Amino acid sequence: MAKDKKGYLLWKKSIKVIPGGNGLLSKRPERYAGEYWPTYFEKALGINLFDLSGNKWKDFAQMGLGCAILGYNNAEVNRYVSKFINKGINTTLNCPEEYILAKKLVKLNSFAKYVKFSRTGGEAMAIAVRIARAKTSTTSLAFSGYHGWHDWYIASNLQNRNNLDEQLLPGLKTNGVPKELIKTAFPFKYNSLSSLKKVLKLNRNIKIIIIEGARKSLLKQEIVEYLNYLKKNKNFVIIVDEITSGLRTSCSGAFKKTKLNPNIVVYGKALGNGFAINAIVGDEIMDCAQDTFISSSFHTERVGFVAAIKTLEILERDKIWINLDLKGKFLLKGINKIAKKYDIKIQTNDFFPLPSYDFNYKDQNSAYHTFFIQEFLKKGYLTSGSIYLSSKHTKKEIEKYLFHFDKITFKLKKILEKNEDIKKYLKIPIIDTGFKRLT
Amino acid sequence: MAKDKKGYLLWKKSIKVIPGGNGLLSKRPERYAGEYWPTYFEKALGINLFDLSGNKWKDFAQMGLGCAILGYNNAEVNRYVSKFINKGINTTLNCPEEYILAKKLVKLNSFAKYVKFSRTGGEAMAIAVRIARAKTSTTSLAFSGYHGWHDWYIASNLQNRNNLDEQLLPGLKTNGVPKELIKTAFPFKYNSLSSLKKVLKLNRNIKIIIIEGARKSLLKQEIVEYLNYLKKNKNFVIIVDEITSGLRTSCSGAFKKTKLNPNIVVYGKALGNGFAINAIVGDEIMDCAQDTFISSSFHTERVGFVAAIKTLEILERDKIWINLDLKGKFLLKGINKIAKKYDIKIQTNDFFPLPSYDFNYKDQNSAYHTFFIQEFLKKGYLTSGSIYLSSKHTKKEIEKYLFHFDKITFKLKKILEKNEDIKKYLKIPIIDTGFKRLT
Repeated sequence: MAKDKKGYLLWKKSIKVIPGGNGLLSKRPERYAGEYWPTYFEKALGINLFDLSGNKWKDFAQMGLGCAILGYNNAEVNRYVSKFINKGINTTLNCPEEYILAKKLVKLNSFAKYVKFSRTGGEAMAIAVRIARAKTSTTSLAFSGYHGWHDWYIASNLQNRNNLDEQLLPGLKTNGVPKELIKTAFPFKYNSLSSLKKVLKLNRNIKIIIIEGARKSLLKQEIVEYLNYLKKNKNFVIIVDEITSGLRTSCSGAFKKTKLNPNIVVYGKALGNGFAINAIVGDEIMDCAQDTFISSSFHTERVGFVAAIKTLEILERDKIWINLDLKGKFLLKGINKIAKKYDIKIQTNDFFPLPSYDFNYKDQNSAYHTFFIQEFLKKGYLTSGSIYLSSKHTKKEIEKYLFHFDKITFKLKKILEKNEDIKKYLKIPIIDTGFKRLT
Repeated sequence: MAKDKKGYLLWKKSIKVIPGGNGLLSKRPERYAGEYWPTYFEKALGINLFDLSGNKWKDFAQMGLGCAILGYNNAEVNRYVSKFINKGINTTLNCPEEYILAKKLVKLNSFAKYVKFSRTGGEAMAIAVRIARAKTSTTSLAFSGYHGWHDWYIASNLQNRNNLDEQLLPGLKTNGVPKELIKTAFPFKYNSLSSLKKVLKLNRNIKIIIIEGARKSLLKQEIVEYLNYLKKNKNFVIIVDEITSGLRTSCSGAFKKTKLNPNIVVYGKALGNGFAINAIVGDEIMDCAQDTFISSSFHTERVGFVAAIKTLEILERDKIWINLDLKGKFLLKGINKIAKKYDIKIQTNDFFPLPSYDFNYKDQNSAYHTFFIQEFLKKGYLTSGSIYLSSKHTKKEIEKYLFHFDKITFKLKKILEKNEDIKKYLKIPIIDTGFKRLT
C-alpha cells in the first residue's frame, strides 16, 4: 500500500494548530484509512490526485465532496476565473457578474424570482432559514437531511441528542448552541410521509419544511404531493437543499424531476466546480430578505460568481447530467452484477448521478467498507461508499474501477467462506462515519 | 459629473433579481450618490477603478471595505493564487496551505494556539461565538461594534429595536431572528467602561464579551485593563473582531497595541487582499470546537488560504502598516488644517491606518458628506467619511486628494457664509447611512 509519509506527518502537525486538523469532517483521514489515507494533495487534474510524496490516486470517492463536477482543475473554468482575477475581484463598487449569475439562476429555475449568494453551504442554509422565518413570523421548522453546522440545525439535538443521528452524521453535540432554541427544529425521516405528518401533528406551529432534493433516492411522489399541498393551501414555506444533489440531473435541482414546487432552493458545491460559491434561489418570498439584515463583504467577491457562470455554461452546453446519470447507472449495474456473482449482500441506491452502495450485513458493514478502501488504496484508488461522479469519469475508467471491485469482492467472498474475522485482514482501523473528537 | 449610464441601468435590473440589488449594504449606490455613483466596476488596479462606461475613478472611499490593503489587483497575490488554481483547489484530500496559514497565524499571534477558517466575516464571528458559548456553557454575551448579520448579533434588537443603532448601522430589523434569543446579546458603547460595567451588572450571567479591535480609536487603557481582569480572574471569554481593524497596525490586530489579552481574535477582509478568507485565531479554548460541530466544504477550499499566505508575506516583508499609519496621520493632519483654514467644523478620528472624518453640525452632517461625495465625483474620485488606505495610496496621491478637499471645503465655506441651503447645491439625494428597504 503506497503510503504518503509526508502527508501523514503534516496531518499530525495540523491537528496541533487546527481543532480536528481541518475545516471539514469529511476530509479527515480517520474517516477513511487513517495514516494510509494520503490526506493531502499537491496537485489534481481530471479524476487524478497527486499527494505530497508524488503518488498518484484516482478519485472514485468524493471528488471534493461533489464540488468537482467538471473534474479537478478544469482548464475552461480556470482560464475564465484567472481572467477576472486579473481585472480585480473585490472593490468598493460591485461586479456585474453578481447580477449576471443571479439572472442566469432565475432563468434556470422557472419558479424563481430572486437570488442571494453566500460562500459556504451552512451559511446559505442559514440565510434561507432566516428568510423563511421572516416570511412566516415563526421559528419552528421540520427538516430531514443534513444541512450544516449552524445553530438552527444543530439545535435539533438540544431536545434529544440522537435527533440528528438518522440524518447523516450521528453523535453531533450541541455545545455552544443556545439552549433557548430547544424545540425549534424537528427532524423527520427522509422520504417518509408518515414521519413528516407525525412531526407536523405534534407541532402545529410549524410553517417551514426543509428537505434535501435527493439523498440516496429522489423524493417519493406522495411526499412531493403533500409538500406541494402544504405550500399551496397551508402557507408553508418549502426549502430544498440542493447543495449536494443540485446540477446533477439538469441545470437545476433534483427537485425538478419530482415536480416539487419549492419556495427556496439552495445550491452550492458543484455550482463553482470547487470555487466557494452558494446561491439561495427563491420566489417572491425572497423579498423578505429586505426586511431583515443579511449582508457580508465576501458575499460580493467576484471569484465565486465567475466560476459559477462558467461552470453553468459548461454544464448546460455539454449536458453533463445526462452522462452522469448513464454512468451512474452503469457503475451501479456493475456493482450489483459483481455482488450477485459472489453472493455478497450489497445494496445500491437509485439516485444515479451520485451512486452509492452499502453492505447489508448486521455488524460488519463498516469493516467491509474499510476492507474495500484498503484494497482500493493498494490499486491506487481513493474510494468510499458514495462515488461522486464527474464529467471526467469516463466509461473506460469506470470499467477499470469495476474490474478492481470484482477482484476485491472476490477476496471478501473468500474470507467470508472461510468464516474468518475480517479484522484479520485489516491493516487500517475500521472507518468511523460519525462525529467524534480527534486527539 | 461623469455618469455611468450602463452601470445605473444594470443596477435597476439587479434590484429586480437580487433583494436589495447586491449582497453587501455598503456597496449599494444609495449610500453614496445614487445614480451618480458608478455602482459597478469592470476593472481595477492599484487605487483606480474603471466603471462599465470606461470612466476612471480614484478610490479614496472604501477600497473594497478595506479588503484591498495591498491595492486592487495586486500582481504578486494574483500570480500566487493563479499558480494554485492551476494545481486544483478543492479535492477529496486537504490542501497543505490550510495548515501553513494556520501555523503562520499562530506565530503572528503569540497568545494563540489554534486556528479555524471560514469564508465570510459574519460566519467567522458566529464560529467564535459558538466556541465561546461551548466553553462557558452560557448563551448571553455583551458586545460593542458591528459584527455581521447572524442571529446571535441581530438578536440584540429583539429586546429593543434601537439596541444596535449606536453600533454601526441604525434600524436593523429582527425579522426572521428567533424570538427565543431575546435577552441573549447586550450592547455596550464602544470604549465606554461605565457602559460595559452597567451591562455586566444588570446581566450577571454574562461570561462572553465581544469587541472590535479598533473602530474610530484604539481601545482605551481602562477598558483594556478591565477586560484583561475579567479574563484572568473571572473566567470571561474575550473575543476581538479585527475583521476591519486587523493587519493595519502590525501583522496582527489592533488589540496588540493596547496590550489586550483576548481568547479569540477574528481576521477577515484584508487577510486575503480581497479573496474570501477569514480566520478565527484563539488560545486553548479553541479546542472546544471539537466538542461541537463546525464543518463546511468551502472552509477547506484552497484559494482563500493561498491568497492569505501571500498577503501576509507581503504585509510582513514591506511592513505596510508603518506606512498606513504615517499616511493616515498625514491625511488627517491635512484635513484638520483645511478645516481650520476655512473654519469648518470637522472631527477626525485617531485610528490613523483607517482615517475617517465627520462633520460636526447639528442636522447638516449627512448633507455635507453628500456634498463632498458629489464634488469629489466631479474630480474623478470616489470618497466617503472613512478612507480605507492601502499600500497603493502614495503620499503624492494623498496630496492631490487634499488639494481637492481644500477646494471643496472652500466651496462649502462660501455656501455657509451666504447662509444658503446646502440642498440647493445637491444634485444627488442626501446619503442614507442606516438600513432601509430598497425599492
